[in-house]
Amino acid sequence: MGPVITTVIRVRFGETDKMGIVYNANYLTWFEIGRTEFCRALSVPYTEWEEQGVFLPVVEAHIRYKSPLKYDERALIETRIMEVTSHSVSYSYRVKPEERSRLAAEGWTRHAFCGPEGRLLREPEPFYSWLKEQTRSSLEEVVLREH
Amino acid sequence: MGPVITTVIRVRFGETDKMGIVYNANYLTWFEIGRTEFCRALSVPYTEWEEQGVFLPVVEAHIRYKSPLKYDERALIETRIMEVTSHSVSYSYRVKPEERSRLAAEGWTRHAFCGPEGRLLREPEPFYSWLKEQTRSSLEEVVLREH
Amino acid sequence: MGPVITTVIRVRFGETDKMGIVYNANYLTWFEIGRTEFCRALSVPYTEWEEQGVFLPVVEAHIRYKSPLKYDERALIETRIMEVTSHSVSYSYRVKPEERSRLAAEGWTRHAFCGPEGRLLREPEPFYSWLKEQTRSSLEEVVLREH
Amino acid sequence: MGPVITTVIRVRFGETDKMGIVYNANYLTWFEIGRTEFCRALSVPYTEWEEQGVFLPVVEAHIRYKSPLKYDERALIETRIMEVTSHSVSYSYRVKPEERSRLAAEGWTRHAFCGPEGRLLREPEPFYSWLKEQTRSSLEEVVLREH
Repeated sequence: MGPVITTVIRVRFGETDKMGIVYNANYLTWFEIGRTEFCRALSVPYTEWEEQGVFLPVVEAHIRYKSPLKYDERALIETRIMEVTSHSVSYSYRVKPEERSRLAAEGWTRHAFCGPEGRLLREPEPFYSWLKEQTRSSLEEVVLREH
Repeated sequence: MGPVITTVIRVRFGETDKMGIVYNANYLTWFEIGRTEFCRALSVPYTEWEEQGVFLPVVEAHIRYKSPLKYDERALIETRIMEVTSHSVSYSYRVKPEERSRLAAEGWTRHAFCGPEGRLLREPEPFYSWLKEQTRSSLEEVVLREH
Repeated sequence: MGPVITTVIRVRFGETDKMGIVYNANYLTWFEIGRTEFCRALSVPYTEWEEQGVFLPVVEAHIRYKSPLKYDERALIETRIMEVTSHSVSYSYRVKPEERSRLAAEGWTRHAFCGPEGRLLREPEPFYSWLKEQTRSSLEEVVLREH
Repeated sequence: MGPVITTVIRVRFGETDKMGIVYNANYLTWFEIGRTEFCRALSVPYTEWEEQGVFLPVVEAHIRYKSPLKYDERALIETRIMEVTSHSVSYSYRVKPEERSRLAAEGWTRHAFCGPEGRLLREPEPFYSWLKEQTRSSLEEVVLREH
């Protein structure tokens, strides 16, 4: 399964909506934080990917909302790699309220490997090998990180 | 299939990200605009649903990103009802750049019928019957609306 | 005083917060829409400024919140030029609920003239002359535009 | 002058815009984080103010943008109380890049004391006395907090 990286976020006032809970689109922003910290923890920061001309635009996303999060609650974003193909990487996420057992949300995003002008890249090294390695790891490493 | 309601949006500067294209989470906001205008066009505004104690929190969402949208581009959001069950309604969406043929994105959202305290509602009337009616309509009505 | 351009927006669900009103930061986004439409209506779209290498980052902003806006309300954003100096332009804004007389908010933003690398530009033509002209105009032109 | 509370944030990808820097409206969100942590550090969480029926809507805001922040940079938000009147409290903020000496932005927000229905409150206790106390404190306490 490979390692899971856990990042902590706290719900901002501006992330709530008039129902008094977190607005649905913000979970995609939290997923982004999750994979940013996954990269930083296990390889190099995503800013270095960009400097070397490798970009990871989202091509597909899926979210299941389980129980609402409220203002000022803290939540853990657990991120892992779900699949790596020659042209894409998929991450999966679980968002857990810090003080409740019920999941807040779970989902996944798929990302194409792209060059600076948006052209698809095939197995861009050294990133591709690094990603592959994560999926083969038998180690279930859990690292807790403040964002 | 039932009617399609088309709403026009224009990409805001703040909706772009450092890749120079629309940030992925904003499509969920546009889906929300699409279903808001669908309700207004074919039944009553969503604000009236709320006043009558019926809320539609998102319980699942799916997005496929096809081609990026840029700052100041206009796009058409086509919204239709995909499925109605006793406890939920699902909308599907297509986001089309106004001046290009290639789709920008497509997706769907599923919504639970809920009361003010978040309790699940079964077939809440008169909304349930109205939604059901939309799915049975043989009319492919297309209405273009500014938001 | 020069012309005023009026743009119509409708409050999105995601723009509200748990107080049930529009979250304060969104007014800056609406100000951006106001000046985008001001440029489009009276000169060339801001995208053309960018293509010619002239950027207008915000260097100062001020907002007075007068009465809250709610979900699905429509509001008029009135935009005008307040001041032009050799290195900056300032716009002022009034946000008016469509169906109430009391102002929702008012404010202004000041923008530096910058080149692509962020260097300050002095009186960049043809934009500078065009901006100056707006402030000298005795005509109080009011144009209503959907965004 | 009273105490300063310092909170650390990291720039999210979605907070950038097509200029490659943080979009201007996000600073208001960071100011909100600053005052949230100020309350938590020195009195009770803002959620408890709300539970006791005291709300602090923003009535005025001012921001000076000094130098742009980029994706994945960390910044310190320094928050202090600027002024307390019988009907309002004002906070001031400085946003400092963690690894550069030049300020990213500074500003202030003024907040009315309001009841649940939006009515103005005069010197709401115990919050009013607590706020007053902060301004009288000769101690320049600096606390660094992860959000």
